[in-house]
Amino acid sequence: MNPDQITDLVVEIAERARVASHALASLPTTTKNQFLNALADRLIAGTDDILTANALDLSAARALNLSGPMTERLTFTPERIAAMAEGVRQVAMLPDPVGEEIERLSPPRGFDLRKIRVPMGVIGIIYESRPNVTIDCAVLCLKSGNAAILRGGKEAFHSNMKLSEIIQETLTASGINKDAVQFIPTTDRWALSVLLKQDKNVHCIIPRGGESLIRFAVENSRIPVIKHYTGVCSVYIDASADPEMAESILINSKCQRPSVCNAAENLIVHQDAAAQLPRLAKALHDQGVELRVDANAKSLLTASGLPLVDATAEDFATEYTDLIISIAVVPDLQAAIEFINQNSSGHTESIVTTDAAAAKQFLAGVDSAAVFHNASTRFSDGFEFGFGAEIGISTDRLHARGPMGLNELCTYKYILNGVGEIKS
Amino acid sequence: MNPDQITDLVVEIAERARVASHALASLPTTTKNQFLNALADRLIAGTDDILTANALDLSAARALNLSGPMTERLTFTPERIAAMAEGVRQVAMLPDPVGEEIERLSPPRGFDLRKIRVPMGVIGIIYESRPNVTIDCAVLCLKSGNAAILRGGKEAFHSNMKLSEIIQETLTASGINKDAVQFIPTTDRWALSVLLKQDKNVHCIIPRGGESLIRFAVENSRIPVIKHYTGVCSVYIDASADPEMAESILINSKCQRPSVCNAAENLIVHQDAAAQLPRLAKALHDQGVELRVDANAKSLLTASGLPLVDATAEDFATEYTDLIISIAVVPDLQAAIEFINQNSSGHTESIVTTDAAAAKQFLAGVDSAAVFHNASTRFSDGFEFGFGAEIGISTDRLHARGPMGLNELCTYKYILNGVGEIKS
Repeated sequence: MNPDQITDLVVEIAERARVASHALASLPTTTKNQFLNALADRLIAGTDDILTANALDLSAARALNLSGPMTERLTFTPERIAAMAEGVRQVAMLPDPVGEEIERLSPPRGFDLRKIRVPMGVIGIIYESRPNVTIDCAVLCLKSGNAAILRGGKEAFHSNMKLSEIIQETLTASGINKDAVQFIPTTDRWALSVLLKQDKNVHCIIPRGGESLIRFAVENSRIPVIKHYTGVCSVYIDASADPEMAESILINSKCQRPSVCNAAENLIVHQDAAAQLPRLAKALHDQGVELRVDANAKSLLTASGLPLVDATAEDFATEYTDLIISIAVVPDLQAAIEFINQNSSGHTESIVTTDAAAAKQFLAGVDSAAVFHNASTRFSDGFEFGFGAEIGISTDRLHARGPMGLNELCTYKYILNGVGEIKS
Repeated sequence: MNPDQITDLVVEIAERARVASHALASLPTTTKNQFLNALADRLIAGTDDILTANALDLSAARALNLSGPMTERLTFTPERIAAMAEGVRQVAMLPDPVGEEIERLSPPRGFDLRKIRVPMGVIGIIYESRPNVTIDCAVLCLKSGNAAILRGGKEAFHSNMKLSEIIQETLTASGINKDAVQFIPTTDRWALSVLLKQDKNVHCIIPRGGESLIRFAVENSRIPVIKHYTGVCSVYIDASADPEMAESILINSKCQRPSVCNAAENLIVHQDAAAQLPRLAKALHDQGVELRVDANAKSLLTASGLPLVDATAEDFATEYTDLIISIAVVPDLQAAIEFINQNSSGHTESIVTTDAAAAKQFLAGVDSAAVFHNASTRFSDGFEFGFGAEIGISTDRLHARGPMGLNELCTYKYILNGVGEIKS
C-alpha cells in the first residue's frame, strides 16, 4: 500500500470504530460476556491455526536473528493459548463498569444530578512483539464498552492477523458490530502516524511497549496518550526498620521477578540503618544480584568483600529489569524522599520502618502512583489491587495513575433529571 | 529576549515550579486559606495600581483598534476588582481537596489499600485577553496544592504583570515559596512552544481561550492538555414535551446569556411535536433570535411569516455565542440522538419530554459531558454542580469531563499500609 492508501485505510477504520462505539456504549452486560466466553472457546478451538500463524512469525524472527527474549515473548504454545483463553473468561466474570453511579452530587439548587461511568469511546492500543496483547486489550476495551483499534508490531504480524480474524468472527457470531475491534492490517509506520491524528474519532491512545514507542506517540499524537513508562521502583530502609522484614521485602521486591516493572531497581538506606547494609547486600549477592553502589554505600560495604560496581547518577534512574540493584545511603528520611522524587519513574516505592511518623511522612512526601509501607513493591498491579485485570500501569498523572483496570478505561458523564428548571 | 534566552527562562520557571510543587502538596489548609484571604486584601488595596497597569493595556488596545468585546474583556473597574477579590475569598472557604480518601480498596489479599487525592504537581495555564484569569487560575491551582505557570495574552500584559507581582508578594508574605505561582514575563510565542515541551516538570496544560489557541497546544504539546472547546449545546423537544416547559427551557437555554458556552445553539424537534414549532419559533423571534432552519423546519414555519434563514450543515456544528439558533426537525428520538452525537461539541444537551422511557434513552445515548432531562442547558457549570468554583468546562473525555472544579485539578495515589507482606 502507498501512503495515500494507508491514510484512507486508517481514517476509515477510525470512522467505523466511532460508529461502532455508539452501540457498544449501551450493549447489555450479558451480550458482552457471551461474546467473551465465545471468544475463549474459539481461541481454544483455533489453537492449531494460531500456532500455524505464529510459526510464520517465529521463522521470520529466526531469519532476522531476533534476540532470545524477543522470540520468547513472540512464542505461542498450546498452554499459552489456553492461559490467554482463561484470561478472557476471567474478564467475563468481572463486574461491568458501564452505567455505575460514581457519585450523587449535592448541587446548591437541589437538582437530581449524578455522575455516571460511561465508556471513553474509541481507544487505540499500540504495542510491540507480544501477540497476546491483541486479545488482552480487545477484551478489556470491549468489556468496558469501548471500540478498540489495535496496532501491533511487525514481529507478531501473522499471529495478530489470525487473532483479529478470530475476534471478528466471534463479534459477528455474537451479533456485535465487528468494527468494535479492528486490527490495522499493515505494519507500515505511516499507519501509526495517521492513527495518532484521528482525534475526531479516537479518544485515547495507550502505547504498550518500550520508551521509544511511547515517546513517538507523545510527540506525534493529537489524541491524549496514557503513558506506561518504565518502573524505576525503590525500597527505602528507614532508621528503625526491622532487619528481618527489611531483608525479606528487599529480596522479594528485587528478585521475585526481576523482569517486570514493579520490581525494585534502587535500594536506599538511612545512614542510621547503615549497620544493616552488609547483611542486605550479602542477601542480594546470594541471589545473584549485582551491586552498584554510591560512595557512602561503597565505604560501608568494602569490608564485606562483596563485588561492588560504582554506581553512576544515571544508574539510579535506570530500569534494569535484571538482577542488578543501585544502592545509595542517605542522611535522613527527607533526603530519601527527595532522592526518590528526583530519580524514580513515579511508579512504586516502599518504606520499611517501625516508625509510624516516618511512614506517614514517606507516604505523603513520595510523589509516585503507589507508595507502600512495609510491603513488597511487587504488589503494585491491577490483580493485587483487586481490579481483576489490568491494561497496564500508568506512570501518568492525568486520568489514570498506577494500575489501570476496567474503570480506568471509562470516562463519566453528568445526568440531571429536572422538572422544568430554568436559570434566573 | 532572543529565543535562547526565552528557552532558558521558561525551562528555569518550569524547574522552579516543580521544586515548589513538592512542598505545596503538603501545605496545611490553613496556610493556603490565609494566603487566599491575604491575596483578596492585597487586590483591594492594590486597586489603583491594577487600574494604572490596566490603563496601559487599554490604551494599547485603542492603538490596535481592538474590537469592543475584546476591550470589554480586558477592562478592569474597581467593581470588577472587588468581585475578583470576593471570588478569591470564596475559594478560601471551599473544602481542601488534597488528602481526601477517594476509595478504600478491597484487594484479594486484604491489604489496607487506599486511593488518596493528591495534587497533579505543576499546571500550565495558557489564556488570552481576560486578565482576571491570572487570579482565578492561580488561586484554584494553589488551593488544590498545585504549582501554576501562567502564560497570558499580550493584550493584558501590563495588567497580568501587576497581578502576578501582587500574587508573588502575598506568597512571600504568607511564607509560601513564591515559585508556587509564576507568570511568564514575555508574550513571545516561542515561550509557549518551549513551555509545551517541559514534560519532565509540567504535568498538565489547560488552555483557556479560542479554538486556535487550543489547537496550537494540542499539536505542539508533549504535556497532556485538557481541552475546553466550544459549547455547541442542543435543546431537543420530544414528541411528548409539555409545550409550556418546552418554551421555557428553550428560551432560557438560548437567551438567558447567549455569549456563554452552556447556551443552546441548536433546537431539535421531534416531528410529532412539529405543532409546537411555530409557537417556539415565535418566542425565540420575540427575544430577537435569528432562526436558521433546515428544510423540514422551513416548511413548518413558512406560514408563520417569521423571518427565516436557510441553515447550512455547518450551522448545526457552530457555536454562535449570539442570538442565533439552528433548527432541525427529526423523524424520531433515535435520529435526534444521532444528530446530536454528530453535531454537538459534547458539552451539554437537554431533552424536554414527559415520557420517562424517552428521557432514559436520551440520557444514555447522548455522548456529551452533561445530559439533562427537563432542565435548562444553562445549569451546566461548576457552581450549579456544587463545585464552588470552576477552572473551565472540559470537552475532553480523559481525566476531567464537563465542569472542572478543585477535585479535577488533582490526581490520586495509592497508599498501602502493610505488615511485611511479600509476594510468593
